[in-house]
Amino acid sequence: MSQSAATVPTNNSPYADLPSISSKLFEAKARKGLTFDQIAKAIGKDEVWVAAAFYGQAKFTTDELKKVSETLGIPAEESLSSLGDHWWPNRGLGPMPPTDPVIYRLYESVLVYGHAIKAVVHEKFGDGIMSMIDCKVNVEKKPDPKGDRVLLTFDGKFLPYAKW
Amino acid sequence: MSQSAATVPTNNSPYADLPSISSKLFEAKARKGLTFDQIAKAIGKDEVWVAAAFYGQAKFTTDELKKVSETLGIPAEESLSSLGDHWWPNRGLGPMPPTDPVIYRLYESVLVYGHAIKAVVHEKFGDGIMSMIDCKVNVEKKPDPKGDRVLLTFDGKFLPYAKW
Amino acid sequence: MSQSAATVPTNNSPYADLPSISSKLFEAKARKGLTFDQIAKAIGKDEVWVAAAFYGQAKFTTDELKKVSETLGIPAEESLSSLGDHWWPNRGLGPMPPTDPVIYRLYESVLVYGHAIKAVVHEKFGDGIMSMIDCKVNVEKKPDPKGDRVLLTFDGKFLPYAKW
Amino acid sequence: MSQSAATVPTNNSPYADLPSISSKLFEAKARKGLTFDQIAKAIGKDEVWVAAAFYGQAKFTTDELKKVSETLGIPAEESLSSLGDHWWPNRGLGPMPPTDPVIYRLYESVLVYGHAIKAVVHEKFGDGIMSMIDCKVNVEKKPDPKGDRVLLTFDGKFLPYAKW
Amino acid sequence: MSQSAATVPTNNSPYADLPSISSKLFEAKARKGLTFDQIAKAIGKDEVWVAAAFYGQAKFTTDELKKVSETLGIPAEESLSSLGDHWWPNRGLGPMPPTDPVIYRLYESVLVYGHAIKAVVHEKFGDGIMSMIDCKVNVEKKPDPKGDRVLLTFDGKFLPYAKW
Amino acid sequence: MSQSAATVPTNNSPYADLPSISSKLFEAKARKGLTFDQIAKAIGKDEVWVAAAFYGQAKFTTDELKKVSETLGIPAEESLSSLGDHWWPNRGLGPMPPTDPVIYRLYESVLVYGHAIKAVVHEKFGDGIMSMIDCKVNVEKKPDPKGDRVLLTFDGKFLPYAKW
Amino acid sequence: MSQSAATVPTNNSPYADLPSISSKLFEAKARKGLTFDQIAKAIGKDEVWVAAAFYGQAKFTTDELKKVSETLGIPAEESLSSLGDHWWPNRGLGPMPPTDPVIYRLYESVLVYGHAIKAVVHEKFGDGIMSMIDCKVNVEKKPDPKGDRVLLTFDGKFLPYAKW
Amino acid sequence: MSQSAATVPTNNSPYADLPSISSKLFEAKARKGLTFDQIAKAIGKDEVWVAAAFYGQAKFTTDELKKVSETLGIPAEESLSSLGDHWWPNRGLGPMPPTDPVIYRLYESVLVYGHAIKAVVHEKFGDGIMSMIDCKVNVEKKPDPKGDRVLLTFDGKFLPYAKW
Amino acid sequence: MSQSAATVPTNNSPYADLPSISSKLFEAKARKGLTFDQIAKAIGKDEVWVAAAFYGQAKFTTDELKKVSETLGIPAEESLSSLGDHWWPNRGLGPMPPTDPVIYRLYESVLVYGHAIKAVVHEKFGDGIMSMIDCKVNVEKKPDPKGDRVLLTFDGKFLPYAKW
Amino acid sequence: MSQSAATVPTNNSPYADLPSISSKLFEAKARKGLTFDQIAKAIGKDEVWVAAAFYGQAKFTTDELKKVSETLGIPAEESLSSLGDHWWPNRGLGPMPPTDPVIYRLYESVLVYGHAIKAVVHEKFGDGIMSMIDCKVNVEKKPDPKGDRVLLTFDGKFLPYAKW
Repeated sequence: MSQSAATVPTNNSPYADLPSISSKLFEAKARKGLTFDQIAKAIGKDEVWVAAAFYGQAKFTTDELKKVSETLGIPAEESLSSLGDHWWPNRGLGPMPPTDPVIYRLYESVLVYGHAIKAVVHEKFGDGIMSMIDCKVNVEKKPDPKGDRVLLTFDGKFLPYAKW
Repeated sequence: MSQSAATVPTNNSPYADLPSISSKLFEAKARKGLTFDQIAKAIGKDEVWVAAAFYGQAKFTTDELKKVSETLGIPAEESLSSLGDHWWPNRGLGPMPPTDPVIYRLYESVLVYGHAIKAVVHEKFGDGIMSMIDCKVNVEKKPDPKGDRVLLTFDGKFLPYAKW
Repeated sequence: MSQSAATVPTNNSPYADLPSISSKLFEAKARKGLTFDQIAKAIGKDEVWVAAAFYGQAKFTTDELKKVSETLGIPAEESLSSLGDHWWPNRGLGPMPPTDPVIYRLYESVLVYGHAIKAVVHEKFGDGIMSMIDCKVNVEKKPDPKGDRVLLTFDGKFLPYAKW
Repeated sequence: MSQSAATVPTNNSPYADLPSISSKLFEAKARKGLTFDQIAKAIGKDEVWVAAAFYGQAKFTTDELKKVSETLGIPAEESLSSLGDHWWPNRGLGPMPPTDPVIYRLYESVLVYGHAIKAVVHEKFGDGIMSMIDCKVNVEKKPDPKGDRVLLTFDGKFLPYAKW
Repeated sequence: MSQSAATVPTNNSPYADLPSISSKLFEAKARKGLTFDQIAKAIGKDEVWVAAAFYGQAKFTTDELKKVSETLGIPAEESLSSLGDHWWPNRGLGPMPPTDPVIYRLYESVLVYGHAIKAVVHEKFGDGIMSMIDCKVNVEKKPDPKGDRVLLTFDGKFLPYAKW
Repeated sequence: MSQSAATVPTNNSPYADLPSISSKLFEAKARKGLTFDQIAKAIGKDEVWVAAAFYGQAKFTTDELKKVSETLGIPAEESLSSLGDHWWPNRGLGPMPPTDPVIYRLYESVLVYGHAIKAVVHEKFGDGIMSMIDCKVNVEKKPDPKGDRVLLTFDGKFLPYAKW
Repeated sequence: MSQSAATVPTNNSPYADLPSISSKLFEAKARKGLTFDQIAKAIGKDEVWVAAAFYGQAKFTTDELKKVSETLGIPAEESLSSLGDHWWPNRGLGPMPPTDPVIYRLYESVLVYGHAIKAVVHEKFGDGIMSMIDCKVNVEKKPDPKGDRVLLTFDGKFLPYAKW
Repeated sequence: MSQSAATVPTNNSPYADLPSISSKLFEAKARKGLTFDQIAKAIGKDEVWVAAAFYGQAKFTTDELKKVSETLGIPAEESLSSLGDHWWPNRGLGPMPPTDPVIYRLYESVLVYGHAIKAVVHEKFGDGIMSMIDCKVNVEKKPDPKGDRVLLTFDGKFLPYAKW
Repeated sequence: MSQSAATVPTNNSPYADLPSISSKLFEAKARKGLTFDQIAKAIGKDEVWVAAAFYGQAKFTTDELKKVSETLGIPAEESLSSLGDHWWPNRGLGPMPPTDPVIYRLYESVLVYGHAIKAVVHEKFGDGIMSMIDCKVNVEKKPDPKGDRVLLTFDGKFLPYAKW
Repeated sequence: MSQSAATVPTNNSPYADLPSISSKLFEAKARKGLTFDQIAKAIGKDEVWVAAAFYGQAKFTTDELKKVSETLGIPAEESLSSLGDHWWPNRGLGPMPPTDPVIYRLYESVLVYGHAIKAVVHEKFGDGIMSMIDCKVNVEKKPDPKGDRVLLTFDGKFLPYAKW
C-alpha cells in the first residue's frame, strides 16, 4: 500500500549502520507501496536476496541498481554514487544475540538444533560444511487451517574440508 | 559402518554438557553402525529431531526411549533412569558465537540474512514471528553435478503478536 | 498533571534508540498530562501494551495511531510517516543486564526464579514454553496497609514443542 | 508418576552449580512421583517457592527441611548437614542470556516489556521499584479452547526510593 | 571557587549519557563556584543525594528543582521542561567494570569484600538483603595525621526474603 | 547454633574457587556454632575482616591462623600447610555482575551512586581516590521500628594522585 | 573503473572509525578508478600495505602522502593536515569476532589452525613468535580451472623469547 | 629428541578440550622424539594439517589413523575407538582473543590487516570470500642473516557470493 | 617538526572520548612542532605525565594549564573553561583488550608476567600492592647496536593491606 | 622461611590452569623456604623470569630444569616428563580484567597511561612498538622513609613497523 510520506529513522538500528542511501531506498519503497517481491521481479532476482541488498548485505550490479532506482523513482546517479563499483558489502547487521524476537528465533535455532544439523550433515556428506556464501535463502507462506506456517529454506553447496 | 569399539569423550564439548547417558547412546549408535535416520524410523520420527534428542535438545516419550534403547542394545531402565518422565531438556548447546565452522555458518546466516528474512516475514504475514517451538527442521542431500547441495528447511508456525 | 513544556532527551537511553517521533509522543503525553491508561482507553487497548508501543516495542494500526495522535494533539500525517504501514518494531530495548534498578528486578526474577518457573510449567503442561508473543502483560496496584504492592501478570499461551 | 529409578546428571547445568544434596532431592521426588505442589502442601508453602528452594534459590527452615526429607524418604540429617542453619542461598542460576527457550522467553519479556512496565509502575506508584525480595511468584494453568494459557504472576511490594 | 566560564563536554562519558540539561546544571554550578553541599542545603537534602540527582540517578520534586534552578541561576522552566513530572531516572551510569580508578575501588570492594559482607549480613539478620532503594549514602572527611580518610557509609533497610 | 554435622559444597560457587581448607573452616565454624564475631574476638580482629579471610580474600598471620584453628578444633599444621607463609590471597571472588541479590545490591550502589561519590570525594579531597587497600569495612545492625537497617561503612585512606 | 561520483558512508563501519580524510581518499580512488596496486606503484610500495594505510592501519611518510595525494587529485596540504607527522595509527579496526564473512574466515583460521601453527613454529624455531610488526602481507590470485584461489602470505620475522 | 617419559597436562588448555586420546598422541610423539613433519610423511600429508588433526581440528581417515598409531607405537584399536568413523572434529580451540602471544599475533593480523586483505580480495576477485574450508596452510622457515623469518601461507579457494 | 596545519579527528578513538579542547591541544602541539618533553619543561613536569594530561588522564592545576596554553598559543580562558577547577579526569581510555599493538603489548605484559610480578612483590614486601595512584611512569630510549630499546619504568609506593 | 608442610590448591586459580608439576614446584619452594631470587641464582637467571617459568609463562632448558629440580629436591625425571623438550608455554594466565588488586593495578596502568606511553614512544622512536617478547622485567625494592616503593622496569626492544 503506497503512502504520501514515509520516513525511516536513520539514527536507529539497523538503519544507522547502513549508508544513508539505504534509508532512501526504504522510504521510496514505502511511498510507492512496493513489496520486495515486486522490486525483485523488476531485476529478475528473488525477494529475500533483494531485501538483503537493501540492508547492505548483498551487492547490486550497476544494471540492477539502475533498474531498482528507476522502479523506486530515485535518481540512478545517487544510488550509484553510494553503492556503485567501489562499494562492497560490510556484512553482518545488528547485535548478537539478537534482541528482536523474529531474528532471535533464528539464533535460537542454532542454539537448539545446531549440533543436530551438524551431525546429520556429517552423516550424509562427510567432513565439511554447508556454504553460507554459495547459498540461496527462501521464505514462503504455507497456508494451514491451524495457523499459517513460514517455510524458510537454505539451499547451500556442501564444501568438503581440504586435506593437504 | 559398525565398529567393535567406540568411545565418546565425556569431558569434551558438547558431551560434557549432556547427561552421561547421552555419551552411551552415541557410543552404542557408533558400535551398531546406525544412522540417525535408521534410529528415527524405529520410532516413527525424523532424523534431525532424533539427533536433537540425542544432544539433549528434545524429549523422548517413555515409549520412544524404550524403542531407541532396544534398537541400540542399551537396557531401557538405564535410559529411563536418566531421561525418563522427570527429565526435561535444558536447551541450548555449545558456545556462542559458535567456534565450529559448520554451526558458525548457521550463525552467519542470522548475521547476514536475519533482517532480510524478518522484512519478508513481515511483508507476507504482518507483525509476528516464525515459532522455533512449533517448528520442524529438515536436512536433505540434493545431488548437483557442480557439487552436492544441502537443503536445510525450517517449517515453523507463524505467531502474530498479541495486542491487549 | 499537564505541563506547559516538556522535553525528552533524544540523545539519551532509551530514547536515542527509538524513532524521533517516539520522543514527540512522550513529550505530548507529558504536556497533556495524560496517563498511559487514558491514552489506552481512547483506542480500546491496555496501558502496558500502549506503553510498549510508545517505546517502539509494539505496532499501532493506522486507526489506532490516528486516534493516539488526535488524543495527543499531534498531526496524524507525522505519526504515520514514521510509524505507518512500512514500519515494524525492532524489538529489544536497553542494555542487558539492565542498569536501571526497576528493570533489573525483572531480570533478577529470571536469575532467581527462572528454573523454578520452568519446572512448574513442565509439571503442569509438559514440554513446551509460555509464549512471549501471544502474551498479555498487566500491572496493577494492590493497596496494602504494610505498603502497596505491584501485581505484575503475564498471561501467555502455552506452546508445546513440535516433534517430527 | 513414580519410577523405580531416577538419576539427575550432577555434572550438567543447572545441577552442577547446586549442592549435591539437590540432585538427591530431585531424584527422590522423581522416584516418589511427587509434584512440587504435593511437596509444598506438606509444608504449607507454594509450589513455585518450593521449586525455587529445590534449585537452591530459597532457604527451607529446619522444620520445613525435615518435613520435606520425610516426604521424600531422605534422612533428615543428610539434608540438614548440607542445607542447615549454616547454609545460605547463593542466588542466581544458569547462563545469561538464558539458552533454554522457556527461560529465554522470560528474559525476552524484560527486553521487550521492561521499559513499559517501568513506565506504568512510575505512573501508578511514583519513583521506586517492585521488590524482587518481598515478592511472591505464581504459575497457574488457565484452560482455553484455543490452547491452554500460562498465568504467571509476580506480587511484589512497591519500594519508594529513599531521599536524604 | 567560581569561574567566569565553564564548559562540560557533552560528548564525553558520563555526560553523553545524560539529558543535556545535566551539563547545564554542572556548568552553572562551576560558574557559581558552589559545592554539592551548598546546593543541598538550599533544598534541605544531603550532598551525595544531590550529586546523584545531577548525574540523573535520582529525581528532584518540582519544588526542589525550582529551588536548585534558582540557586544556580538557570530558568526553572528549562529545568522543568527536561526533568519535570514526566521524567524518571534511567539509573545506572558508566562502564562496568569501571575504568575510572575512584569508581573502580568501589567495584573492587564488591569483588574482595562482597561475600564477607553477605555472610555477616546473614549472620546478623537472616536470609535477606540490604536495600539499595531505601538506602542513604554518605561521604565524610575524617582528618588523620597519617593522611586523611574517606568515611563512606551505606545505611540501608534490611529486607527479609518473602516466602509463600 | 552448633550442629552435629555440616558440609559445605566444595564444587559450588564460591567454595570451588577457594583452597579446600576453606571449606573445612566453614564446616568447623558451623559445627561449633560460632559467629564470625566470636572467632574474630579470639584473634583481636573484626568480624568482616575474618569473614574475608575465610573467603580467601585476606591473609592470617601464622599466629592468627593457629588461634583460629584452635578455636575451630582444626589441627594447626593442616591450616598452615595450606594458608601458611607461602600462600597469598588471589583476591576477587564470584561472577561479575554478581548474580546473588545481596552482592548485586552492592554492585548496584556503584552503578547508581558511583559518580556521585566520586564527585563529592573530589570536592572534599581533590584529585585522588579512596584506597580499598588501606580500608576497613564494617557491618552493623541498626534497630529501627520500621524495620532494622544495615549500616555498612568503608573507612579508607585518601590517596592523592602523584604528579611527576 | 572510474565513476563521475562516489561517496563513502562516513557514518558506517569501518569508515566511522577513521579520520574523515580516509573517506576522501577512498572516494577519490573510486572516482579515478584506481586499484590499490596502481596507487602502490606510484610510491614504490605493495598494494596490501597501501590498503592498510587507507584504512588507518599504517603510516605514510610525508613524501608518500604527497605522492598519493597527487595521484588521487587531492590537495597535499589537506592530507598532511590530517595524516602528517603528528598522526600515528591507532591500529585495530572493526568488531571482533568479525561479522563480515571475508574477515571472519581469517578469524576462523586462528580458531582452527592457531594451535597447529604455534606447534610447528615451535618445532622449527624454538620458543618465540612470528612478529606481526616486522611482517609483510601479500594477496595473490592463483588461477585454477576448478576455481581461482587466493594466496595469502605472511612473511614475518621470528623473535625468540628473551630470557634474563 | 626422544625422552624416556613425557606427560601432557590433560587438565590444562588446550588439552582439556580434546579427547583424552589426543594427550596420548602428544605424549607418544614426545617419547619417540618425532616431528610433525616425520609423522606427516608416514601418511603422505603435510605437517600443519597433521598438527591440526592432533589438536582435534581435522579428521584422519581410518587408514591414516592406523598408520599414525603404528608410527607412534599406540594400539590402533585405541585410537580408532576414540577418533574412528563416529568422531567428527568439533572445531575451534582456545580462548578468543587468544592469550598466548604466538596465536595472538595471528589474531592481531585480522585486527590490523583484515580490512586491507578484504579490499584487495574484492579488487582482484569481486564479491566473495577466501574459503577457510578448501584452504591449505603452510609454515616454512626462511633463513635470513638479520634473523630467520616465518613464511605462513594460506592457499584458499575463492568463493563468489551466490545471487538468486 | 612544526606544520602549518594539523587536524586531529575528533570523531575517532581516542579523541572522541575526550573533551574537544583536547583535540585543540594536540593540534596546537603539532603546529608548533613541540614534543611532550618540551611542553613538560615549561611547567616543570615529566613528559609522560603531560601526555597523560593531554589524554584527559591527569589534571593540570590552573597555573600549569595557563602555562601550557601560553606555550601552545591557545587562549587560557578556553582551556580553563574546559579543564578548570570544575573538571576532574574520568580516567580509563580506549578499548580493553587494546586493539592497538603498542598498547596491547603492555596488556600482554599483565597476561604473561602479572602473576610473576605479584609473586615477587609479595616475597619482597609482604601482602599489599604497588600503588598506581602514587606512581610515576617513565619512558626512556636506550641506544643499543642490536636495535634501540625502550626502558619503561613504574615507580609506585607499596601499600600494605589494612587489617582491622 | 621453610615449613615442614606446604600445599598449593591445585583446583584454584591460577594453579588449576597450570601443569600439576607447577604446584609441586611451588610446594617444594615453600618447604625449602627459598625465594625466587635464590632459585634464580642457581641457574644464573633473574627472579622475575624464574617466577614466570614457575607460572608456566616461560620455558626452562633441560639443564635449567635439572638444576631447579635439584635445588628444590624434586626428581629431575618428573620435572622433565612434564616440562621437557615437548612442552611449550601456553602463555596468558588469569582472568581479564584481573580481579586480584595487585595485578589489577598493572592493568589500570594500561587504562590510564597506555595512550601516554604510546605517544611518547612514537615521539622518541617513530612508528613501532616495544617488544614484549624481547623484553626483560625487573622488580626492585626502593626504600623510602615515607613508605617503600616498588620499582618495576620493562626493558624491551623497539621494533619499527615493516613497510613493503
